[in-house]
Amino acid sequence: MADTKFKAVVEAKDGLTMSCKSSNFEIILDEPKYLGGNNEGMNPVECLLNAIGACKGIVARSFAKAHNVNIANMKIEVEGTLNPDGFMGKDKDAKIGFSHIVTNYYFESEEDEAKLEDFIQFIERTCPVIDTIVNTPTFESKLNIT
Amino acid sequence: MADTKFKAVVEAKDGLTMSCKSSNFEIILDEPKYLGGNNEGMNPVECLLNAIGACKGIVARSFAKAHNVNIANMKIEVEGTLNPDGFMGKDKDAKIGFSHIVTNYYFESEEDEAKLEDFIQFIERTCPVIDTIVNTPTFESKLNIT
Repeated sequence: MADTKFKAVVEAKDGLTMSCKSSNFEIILDEPKYLGGNNEGMNPVECLLNAIGACKGIVARSFAKAHNVNIANMKIEVEGTLNPDGFMGKDKDAKIGFSHIVTNYYFESEEDEAKLEDFIQFIERTCPVIDTIVNTPTFESKLNIT
Repeated sequence: MADTKFKAVVEAKDGLTMSCKSSNFEIILDEPKYLGGNNEGMNPVECLLNAIGACKGIVARSFAKAHNVNIANMKIEVEGTLNPDGFMGKDKDAKIGFSHIVTNYYFESEEDEAKLEDFIQFIERTCPVIDTIVNTPTFESKLNIT
């Protein structure tokens, strides 16, 4: 498989509510009321954390058999630290996005700890969402006036 | 506002299907059948692109008034290039995540082009999801065996 394009189409609805579509699927992203939104969906930074967690989960599920790792059930919690004062322009020194991201893997498994730790290292380096953040891609933006 | 924590809780369901929750909201992420999934939701890399587009849209909506920019309607399309052979281990030289991300802003507006271009520059540097990718945060992972 060569380079493949993935696409998102985001339409601004009422206030900060965003309809977000890829393929045949839609998710609604928004902000909570204390950040000025309608609270109709999780917000984009929470969505990013879920994309990270789900991507790690999918890597784990996809490669467990090949790595001979048996995990009956798994839950992955991802917590990010962000100072909203950066985004809101109240503190010029505050980082705009996440400064630190912690992943807690909860594996229901009989495997020994060292084997599961090795598998986590594999997941971390094989996750496309994490790679996109760690090895920053190039960006391009285009304005279209309608 | 000081440092704030945002959290995602991802539970692996059948196959590659992931239940992803933040606050009171849930989204389902999955993979299409050709990538081994149940196709019950968009996949994590598409979710990442939607988080980028929605974040830019929310920045645009939140700051348009302060920048005296009038945009009646907006649509933001985000397209990322990724070679699945990297993730699947078929090509050791292929980047695992996105190599290039293009954002197309569609603004329905009477404003002149230069003013909208300036506003896009502001959006790009104020978007927390983009900042997380451009200015990579620190990461930490913990294993919990249950």
